[in-house]
Amino acid sequence: MLDVTKPKSTAPFDTALLDRLMDEAGIDLLLVTSKHNVQYLMGGHRAFFFESMDAMGLSRYLPVFVYVKGEPQKAGFFGHRMENFQNENTPFWVTEINAKSSGSVDVMEKAVDYARRLMPKPKRIGAELAFLPVDAAEVLRKAFPQSEIKDALFVLERLRARKSPKELEMLRIASDAVIDSMLAVIQNHGAGATKAELTEALRREETSRGLTFDYCLIAAGSSLNRAPSDQRWEKGDVLSLDSGGNYHGYIGDVARMGVIGEPDAELVDLLAEVEAIEQASMKPIRPGALGKEIYAAANVPLHKSKLHNHIEFLAHGMGLVSHEAPRLTNAGPVPYDAYDADRPLETGMVISVETTLKHPRRGFLKLEDTVVVTPTGFEVYGDRIRGWNRAGRP
Amino acid sequence: MLDVTKPKSTAPFDTALLDRLMDEAGIDLLLVTSKHNVQYLMGGHRAFFFESMDAMGLSRYLPVFVYVKGEPQKAGFFGHRMENFQNENTPFWVTEINAKSSGSVDVMEKAVDYARRLMPKPKRIGAELAFLPVDAAEVLRKAFPQSEIKDALFVLERLRARKSPKELEMLRIASDAVIDSMLAVIQNHGAGATKAELTEALRREETSRGLTFDYCLIAAGSSLNRAPSDQRWEKGDVLSLDSGGNYHGYIGDVARMGVIGEPDAELVDLLAEVEAIEQASMKPIRPGALGKEIYAAANVPLHKSKLHNHIEFLAHGMGLVSHEAPRLTNAGPVPYDAYDADRPLETGMVISVETTLKHPRRGFLKLEDTVVVTPTGFEVYGDRIRGWNRAGRP
Repeated sequence: MLDVTKPKSTAPFDTALLDRLMDEAGIDLLLVTSKHNVQYLMGGHRAFFFESMDAMGLSRYLPVFVYVKGEPQKAGFFGHRMENFQNENTPFWVTEINAKSSGSVDVMEKAVDYARRLMPKPKRIGAELAFLPVDAAEVLRKAFPQSEIKDALFVLERLRARKSPKELEMLRIASDAVIDSMLAVIQNHGAGATKAELTEALRREETSRGLTFDYCLIAAGSSLNRAPSDQRWEKGDVLSLDSGGNYHGYIGDVARMGVIGEPDAELVDLLAEVEAIEQASMKPIRPGALGKEIYAAANVPLHKSKLHNHIEFLAHGMGLVSHEAPRLTNAGPVPYDAYDADRPLETGMVISVETTLKHPRRGFLKLEDTVVVTPTGFEVYGDRIRGWNRAGRP
Repeated sequence: MLDVTKPKSTAPFDTALLDRLMDEAGIDLLLVTSKHNVQYLMGGHRAFFFESMDAMGLSRYLPVFVYVKGEPQKAGFFGHRMENFQNENTPFWVTEINAKSSGSVDVMEKAVDYARRLMPKPKRIGAELAFLPVDAAEVLRKAFPQSEIKDALFVLERLRARKSPKELEMLRIASDAVIDSMLAVIQNHGAGATKAELTEALRREETSRGLTFDYCLIAAGSSLNRAPSDQRWEKGDVLSLDSGGNYHGYIGDVARMGVIGEPDAELVDLLAEVEAIEQASMKPIRPGALGKEIYAAANVPLHKSKLHNHIEFLAHGMGLVSHEAPRLTNAGPVPYDAYDADRPLETGMVISVETTLKHPRRGFLKLEDTVVVTPTGFEVYGDRIRGWNRAGRP
């Protein structure tokens, strides 16, 4: 998205940063094909016909954004013929625009024709290997038989790590709308509502607030199952709602709790423990703090808890993708997983902190919050209703 | 989906038909990775966490369905760990279930391990080349270095060509809900509403009726541009709404017209011409009629029209994909494009007929209808409001 704090440029993203990241990865030429990264590089463009589906006939929608390192003025966009209507209404920023394709092979043929004119023999081509269909990849390989094709997802994720004011505003809108939607669902329901009904109600509440509903992880009673089902929410049962909904692609992802009637003292204490970990985890967040300080801060109350064996804390970046940079977990064997643990947080990064208590008797208790790194510290989006929200019906 | 008219089987689809189609294509082993075909083969299963998005971290959601020709009892499903919740609630029909993955590579590694145990050296493997990411394809190739990998999209489309009563019911619900939503939008708006506002209103109407909104192609006034924008709908302007919305994946796709105030005589005549082509195109539809009879019938009134140079007629199959079998167009160089033109229509096929008039002065006029092949002829879903629908506000 356009960052108005940066020097004016034709491109709607930080081209100097992209060039540096490409240089570090040894990539000369980029061919970007994921919806989220194409949106970012195209300044917010999303193909209106393919918001919810990709398949069409015996192929699929595939956008291709072409970029040569150091030459943003030669960037190109290759898309579906429907996208011409959008270019007519709000002209795309790129020099080369070809929206005449209908599938994954024909669009890539046009994109590589252009890319070869820009750079006939790139040493290394960056592509998104999880978002490049094998039929389009074959076209790319044949066009550049001498070139190495390297995964560019990490490069593009780094490019998106610091959000612009415009992006932050969309994340704020999304977070607030998910919070408001959860409150409405809890207040409009009571004993006997099924998890499927509550999920559908949440989908409609989020939609009516301008979001695209992504998902709802939902647990009720003592069950740890989090998929919508015919299970009923009953009196005394806890209800965990953990939902993602996006505003023009930018995801609000928060979790809150509901209960029918008054929560008993044990439930009040348990949720207070979860909230204490959430609040502790946010405290160190500021530019320059290391990523791992978030975990270290959360672990103090977590390890003190008698229930620490049942509690999980997780922190991850978020934005156009529900888990993205900064990469904070030090858990798994996944490449880059804790990449930012020993790196400083930066202004504009957005971090989701989530604390889950899987209580053997009382069920699934969870809070999740969205925290933005600001120049002086942090700001929380959707900063409310962390306690027990009472069902509006008995 | 389960077809209750067929002999009972563990599999929720016609395995004999799939085996025959695989045999004709010389495919021994299938690895299916598109959401729509996995849904079909899994009896309606859709990963609730990935309804609207695929990206996650530096990879993406990728389901893999494994099937050996003639051995449905050995079919396997490989999915994301979130899908275990769904399997707990409504057990999957397949024998082998592994929902422990988080990305496109690890899920394919598990799928090929299983596939190799079933069939170590298949001659030809069917995969969906437009829906198989190149990183997962690499895993598949390494596991089966001697095997040819062939596109299976056509085979799977043929398998889905005849809809079961359950599938037809979902298509009927979707069509009706889109029609009702369009009427509500037209009746709740009037002069000054922008195309973007009308589209957002339609999205909310479809959602409130249980659909997932797919898209709205929208044109107003004399413009032929069909993307949402700030253009306003004004008094006397035609409004063309062409929207897709799906019910559990099954797409309702219809087009209707609106106008502010009373349409003048010319507009009434023009839309009557469009409707006459629609109605004519449906008449030959019955089991045993050849696909091309639909075009032949539409072409009679079309070629008689003084405006025939501005009118386009199109017929295509639809279901889980907005353009699928039966393949009726005889226009393009696309493989299989007119495959069904000289083949008989069959009971349970679903055909979208669409007539578009791009009028140089009056703008974009279009009707689109969903027609089902029944044992005795045809039935139209959403069979109403084909005339000028008056805006509810001046």
